[in-house]
Amino acid sequence: MNSKEKLSGLRLKVYETVFEADTPAGRTFDIALLICIVSSVIVIILESVEPLREQYGFWFRITEWCFTLIFTLEYLARLWTVLNKKKYVLSFFGIVDLLSILPTYLALIFASAHSLMVIRSIRLLRIFRILKLPRYVGEGQNLIRALKASQHKIIVFLFTVLTSVIITGTVMFIIEGPEHGFTSIPRSIYWAIVTMTTVGYGDIAPQTSLGQTVASFIMILGYGIIAVPTGIVSAEMIQLKNTEKISGQVCPNCFREGHDVDATYCKFCGHLLN
Amino acid sequence: MNSKEKLSGLRLKVYETVFEADTPAGRTFDIALLICIVSSVIVIILESVEPLREQYGFWFRITEWCFTLIFTLEYLARLWTVLNKKKYVLSFFGIVDLLSILPTYLALIFASAHSLMVIRSIRLLRIFRILKLPRYVGEGQNLIRALKASQHKIIVFLFTVLTSVIITGTVMFIIEGPEHGFTSIPRSIYWAIVTMTTVGYGDIAPQTSLGQTVASFIMILGYGIIAVPTGIVSAEMIQLKNTEKISGQVCPNCFREGHDVDATYCKFCGHLLN
Amino acid sequence: MNSKEKLSGLRLKVYETVFEADTPAGRTFDIALLICIVSSVIVIILESVEPLREQYGFWFRITEWCFTLIFTLEYLARLWTVLNKKKYVLSFFGIVDLLSILPTYLALIFASAHSLMVIRSIRLLRIFRILKLPRYVGEGQNLIRALKASQHKIIVFLFTVLTSVIITGTVMFIIEGPEHGFTSIPRSIYWAIVTMTTVGYGDIAPQTSLGQTVASFIMILGYGIIAVPTGIVSAEMIQLKNTEKISGQVCPNCFREGHDVDATYCKFCGHLLN
Amino acid sequence: MNSKEKLSGLRLKVYETVFEADTPAGRTFDIALLICIVSSVIVIILESVEPLREQYGFWFRITEWCFTLIFTLEYLARLWTVLNKKKYVLSFFGIVDLLSILPTYLALIFASAHSLMVIRSIRLLRIFRILKLPRYVGEGQNLIRALKASQHKIIVFLFTVLTSVIITGTVMFIIEGPEHGFTSIPRSIYWAIVTMTTVGYGDIAPQTSLGQTVASFIMILGYGIIAVPTGIVSAEMIQLKNTEKISGQVCPNCFREGHDVDATYCKFCGHLLN
Repeated sequence: MNSKEKLSGLRLKVYETVFEADTPAGRTFDIALLICIVSSVIVIILESVEPLREQYGFWFRITEWCFTLIFTLEYLARLWTVLNKKKYVLSFFGIVDLLSILPTYLALIFASAHSLMVIRSIRLLRIFRILKLPRYVGEGQNLIRALKASQHKIIVFLFTVLTSVIITGTVMFIIEGPEHGFTSIPRSIYWAIVTMTTVGYGDIAPQTSLGQTVASFIMILGYGIIAVPTGIVSAEMIQLKNTEKISGQVCPNCFREGHDVDATYCKFCGHLLN
Repeated sequence: MNSKEKLSGLRLKVYETVFEADTPAGRTFDIALLICIVSSVIVIILESVEPLREQYGFWFRITEWCFTLIFTLEYLARLWTVLNKKKYVLSFFGIVDLLSILPTYLALIFASAHSLMVIRSIRLLRIFRILKLPRYVGEGQNLIRALKASQHKIIVFLFTVLTSVIITGTVMFIIEGPEHGFTSIPRSIYWAIVTMTTVGYGDIAPQTSLGQTVASFIMILGYGIIAVPTGIVSAEMIQLKNTEKISGQVCPNCFREGHDVDATYCKFCGHLLN
Repeated sequence: MNSKEKLSGLRLKVYETVFEADTPAGRTFDIALLICIVSSVIVIILESVEPLREQYGFWFRITEWCFTLIFTLEYLARLWTVLNKKKYVLSFFGIVDLLSILPTYLALIFASAHSLMVIRSIRLLRIFRILKLPRYVGEGQNLIRALKASQHKIIVFLFTVLTSVIITGTVMFIIEGPEHGFTSIPRSIYWAIVTMTTVGYGDIAPQTSLGQTVASFIMILGYGIIAVPTGIVSAEMIQLKNTEKISGQVCPNCFREGHDVDATYCKFCGHLLN
Repeated sequence: MNSKEKLSGLRLKVYETVFEADTPAGRTFDIALLICIVSSVIVIILESVEPLREQYGFWFRITEWCFTLIFTLEYLARLWTVLNKKKYVLSFFGIVDLLSILPTYLALIFASAHSLMVIRSIRLLRIFRILKLPRYVGEGQNLIRALKASQHKIIVFLFTVLTSVIITGTVMFIIEGPEHGFTSIPRSIYWAIVTMTTVGYGDIAPQTSLGQTVASFIMILGYGIIAVPTGIVSAEMIQLKNTEKISGQVCPNCFREGHDVDATYCKFCGHLLN
């Protein structure tokens, strides 16, 4: 949004209010929006409960229309003030903004679209736009950076898990067969995932001795495999903590960073650090 | 309790006995109270078992009244000796102390309050007041400090989990619908939590192919997410261990830090550490 | 394959194409094979779904024969070009290659072999031969090395788990007995594994008070035991990260070690590191 | 067994064979015993399977008597050679040795003791006496030492878990009540343990909205609590790895150990380390 200076008058003011958070108006707007989003999601959740819908259905529809109108106005305000409209509409939050209001209008036109109205709960994602409290964003970015640094390890890990569950699923499909609930390989793979992640619903469970033996091996294997992502994340977290021990000092000679807190001389050019 | 010196005579003695643990009387009192609390909680637990209640109901009621009288006396003693009575009554342990005795008296007056008598098991929390064994308190404080140091990470993590389960719950409510047990969004969210925490009761389980596919993704995601709190706690624990070992001493000769707590001489230049 | 130079002409070219990945032909071959393997496994998985098999059974058989012919040609090409044929045939991938095509031919001869056709899904393992992308292989090797470094710890751990589940299984067989689903010791051991790994299907669950008490102890024990492999892997991962960062260089002036890999000058005395 | 030199002749030889592993006879004896123990446990496990017992019951009884005779001879040999007989009989392995043979004889006298014969599977514990392979014992001791170093943390943790499940169990007993399977507080506590350890059988599951809400909180709490033992063990494991980095050097002046690998001067007395 480096083209902000091209805006002027009311449009600039609206832009600062809806897109930014460093003016009093912007902050008030953000808090109001936060309350609207959370309330509207609560209404959607409550509306899905049969007895509540029967009793308060009318009020749910009223509040829903209020929230839809507010969000429509907000969407139009964003559309009006932003310079690169196409980029906004196709951006992640542009699509989320649209999906937050569209279902209500569609349900008005097509009666059959009514069942899709719960899509509106996607509104919840909009909270992440408002939640720019620097502290939490910083922590969140640290978490994401830690995960990104381990992405190769994570891909290798996911690939191993995927291969394991496909082969396990096939083997269990042969051993147990449709008569014990393993009706197809996809369903057996589903069982393998349920087992390896230690969720264990029990809706499908091996019943032959051989099947239970194979399942036992997979469980102990899954027990070990669960240690791998934990190990990866732990190692990254500790790394993160250690990098906090690296001083923010810049060498006055070569202008490079990354020195240990206890370093006296620049480790790159040998110049004394001040 | 810096106003302890204002007390005198019997009141001071009672105060030292019920609130403190460094006199012989105080220690005896603490041990006796510990036994009373544990026994009374065991009685409450056993009383809830139908066959035992039928057979020994009379004795359970007798012992319950004994414990209630003891705890009432203790409560009155605390109330009498403490100077700032209001502060004590409204403090956490003040409320717990009251809730430990109130239900028994209420059940005497209102017959219908009988079902609430199990609230008395809140007495168990009173153990934490007695358990001031320095070693364990130290360890407990370390654990709490470690968690507090990571509180921003934990809040970001909990917020992500919350958003994930709400969106997942809504998606599964659309996919599976009431005919497969996902009768409302709150119930679907409950299912999502049961699945993501790898508890997996199996009372609600996806039955359509699409639902099982989505569930599989969530399980593998939950598998990864479980690694995050573990990584956070591990990193804090290791930090804790390391800070315990390195003293803040600086060598007076070479001005370098990072010496072990048990070091007498600088490990770099051999100079005596002060 | 140090005897590669003995090959010549077409045979050398075919060898380089099917076994290596550093010529354009080799790379194209690998990508084509990867697509074939993944597609054929998807076909096997889809074929196992009853409704799909009934409707598209004919097409599944056609594509299966195409893939089998491709894999047969590939197997013959490998067999022709490799010098030490016996070693290849008996190697891990030689056996996997054969098992990938054999079931289709066997099903042609013996009608009863049809049910074993799913063995073909073992083809999936062949992906690991193609997946030689250096980055992922490196990460994979790191993971394997980390696990190997801890193999004694892991064996001790597995042995403890094995002994625990056998003794627990026997104890629960005595306590619960056949009338509560613990029909035999092997089945009780299966239950113990399901419980200790926190999978918890619920197909077998203790129903007596004593059984539930013992089960509770095992669960809390399993809770602690799950920490051991995680701890092992975490420690190895962190070790791995640390060794990557510290070079083995010694300062030629002050003879001190522990310099970062990217250091040019000694961080303690400022002397140039060689 | 520092009184070994008091033994002589055959008795000394037998002592060395049954109690020690550093003579060829001792090693042969250990391997033979290992095979006997494992085989006899396998026989016990197989005997518990109904169809196998019906078909091979006679052979199971024969082999059982063989193993019992062997173990009886071994027990008598140990009893004969050991000097402090009382200490051996009352030691952990002395009791295990006796329990390994007693049930078979008791079943001969009292027909009703037959059901207790599975106690013989306690024999498995005797493997730990034989398994003195130094490598594994070393690793095992490291694991145990790591756990011992954290024992205060572990006790605080277990105490917190215990209090949590008792209070949760009571609360759920009030909320759900006997009509939803929470028939008594002990049973509710069992449910709380099953939930918090993420086992989740599903034999008891909350059915009211309030109960499911409380259960959700407990699950997320349990999710976090599971991180604590993992963090403890990880920290200890890493500590263990780091102590391996401490040199075995002894100061030539003050004879104290525990110096870092990179230390030049003794950190206790300042003397140059050689």
